[in-house]
Amino acid sequence: MEEQDVISGVVWLNGKLTDYSTATVSIEDRGFYFGDGVYEVIRVYDGKPFGLDRHLNRLERSAAGIELALPMPLAEIGELAKDLTRRSGRENAEIYIQITRGRGRRNHVFPESEPTFLVGVREGRRIPAELLHTGCSVITRPDERWARCNLKTIGLLPNVLAKEAAHRLGAAEALLVRDGLVTEGTSSNVFIWKAGGLATPVADNRILPGITREITIELARKLGYEVAERDIPLGELLDADEVFITGTTVEMMPVVKVDDHRIGNGMPGDVRGDLHAAFMDLIQRNSKGEV
Amino acid sequence: MEEQDVISGVVWLNGKLTDYSTATVSIEDRGFYFGDGVYEVIRVYDGKPFGLDRHLNRLERSAAGIELALPMPLAEIGELAKDLTRRSGRENAEIYIQITRGRGRRNHVFPESEPTFLVGVREGRRIPAELLHTGCSVITRPDERWARCNLKTIGLLPNVLAKEAAHRLGAAEALLVRDGLVTEGTSSNVFIWKAGGLATPVADNRILPGITREITIELARKLGYEVAERDIPLGELLDADEVFITGTTVEMMPVVKVDDHRIGNGMPGDVRGDLHAAFMDLIQRNSKGEV
Repeated sequence: MEEQDVISGVVWLNGKLTDYSTATVSIEDRGFYFGDGVYEVIRVYDGKPFGLDRHLNRLERSAAGIELALPMPLAEIGELAKDLTRRSGRENAEIYIQITRGRGRRNHVFPESEPTFLVGVREGRRIPAELLHTGCSVITRPDERWARCNLKTIGLLPNVLAKEAAHRLGAAEALLVRDGLVTEGTSSNVFIWKAGGLATPVADNRILPGITREITIELARKLGYEVAERDIPLGELLDADEVFITGTTVEMMPVVKVDDHRIGNGMPGDVRGDLHAAFMDLIQRNSKGEV
Repeated sequence: MEEQDVISGVVWLNGKLTDYSTATVSIEDRGFYFGDGVYEVIRVYDGKPFGLDRHLNRLERSAAGIELALPMPLAEIGELAKDLTRRSGRENAEIYIQITRGRGRRNHVFPESEPTFLVGVREGRRIPAELLHTGCSVITRPDERWARCNLKTIGLLPNVLAKEAAHRLGAAEALLVRDGLVTEGTSSNVFIWKAGGLATPVADNRILPGITREITIELARKLGYEVAERDIPLGELLDADEVFITGTTVEMMPVVKVDDHRIGNGMPGDVRGDLHAAFMDLIQRNSKGEV
């Protein structure tokens, strides 16, 4: 990947075409002052956005959850994202959408202003292939987030601090634990396989309802696996035969170590392998326009 | 106040003098992407910053709490704030300081970049004088914030949503309630007076340790009032003889109604009046350089 690919990428910002390297917002933007906004990250494979409609529907729910009006109809946001993807000429890309409550003198009460709305497309990050073969390590951290984790808002500082802690320990992710229950990773959902069944935490206000999580559940059921959406105590996670995390960027990543505990036999498991193969197949069919 | 005063004000942004109306940051600023930053608001009376050292010390604690290095020594930040205040020529002003983790391609892990650092000075907001005479109404809302409310971070969306709810109901503030206990307002601390004693929630990770809160406790003790820092169940707040909120912008504001409950006799109380007089005296001595 060229250095230029890392820093650049086309950005549509409130109606103007610009670039990640030059796009700016006022210091009085509600995103910058208050974390008052929502976002989505959408993966592009073979030039085709994957799961776009699901991401847009979640964007609508997140915006409604913070009483933020969408700057344009959802279908138009989708067309804009697709148009920018084509314009970028990239095959492997990442679409980023962010909407904030616009600009106003600093005051908690909502301003009377238009939202700040940006859609960017840049080179996508690829998962290091060896991690799929060896599996990754994760750490656990207390879940210190707010009460509405089901909304994809930009108030991500608790996630940032936990992810940084993982990074410093050489781990790929931090799994968050609230009241003894595993909720999710800082930017991923979590699944376990034990005693012939899959389990993942229920999608209530304690977790983000991940798009890859949702697709994983659907694919698993199609393949005949039982999937339970329920509470998962930390002890049960540590005793699982397989653990994996799902997300737009990590896809389905095997977890072989949690803190100092080895998971199963310490190697990526077959169930996740099956599911990832089905996921890759779905991506290919999406690329060919078959789904 | 002129319209120009509302939108303008001098801003020092990473070494460049600019203005609120024109100062911008990259969309890739960690403040805009993640709410990854800390801030302070300092009141200027008669051209003199009030409680500057206390605010700076808290800024240092907040930054340390999120592992963010200060962009310059604390004393230099103070000199910069004082210099900008003089430069602004304003008597009644508001200093705003914000530090974020700088700019980087969107990724939770800390970037290798310099912080974004801004100090702004603009016209201060005055409390409507009639509110001091009549007292204000507040509402209660569930405290949905994260676990580290003692850090003054810019991740303020829960505060924003609660304050907006208050505003729509014609109330001045929303008091937050966690596990049946009153914690604080969205941008203020809370005190009650009952049975000859003052009480305010203890300054642990559930509340922001307010500068005006701290000064209020000190002044109250000097005046011979007993002050307990302890848990306050919502029922006790509703039964109080006096309730008031404290903060840099609201100073000490009497609360006469909480949701549908009248507090005491429905009029601002004498204890808060005593304390506010002592507070005004302290401000005057600060203005004269006596403290």
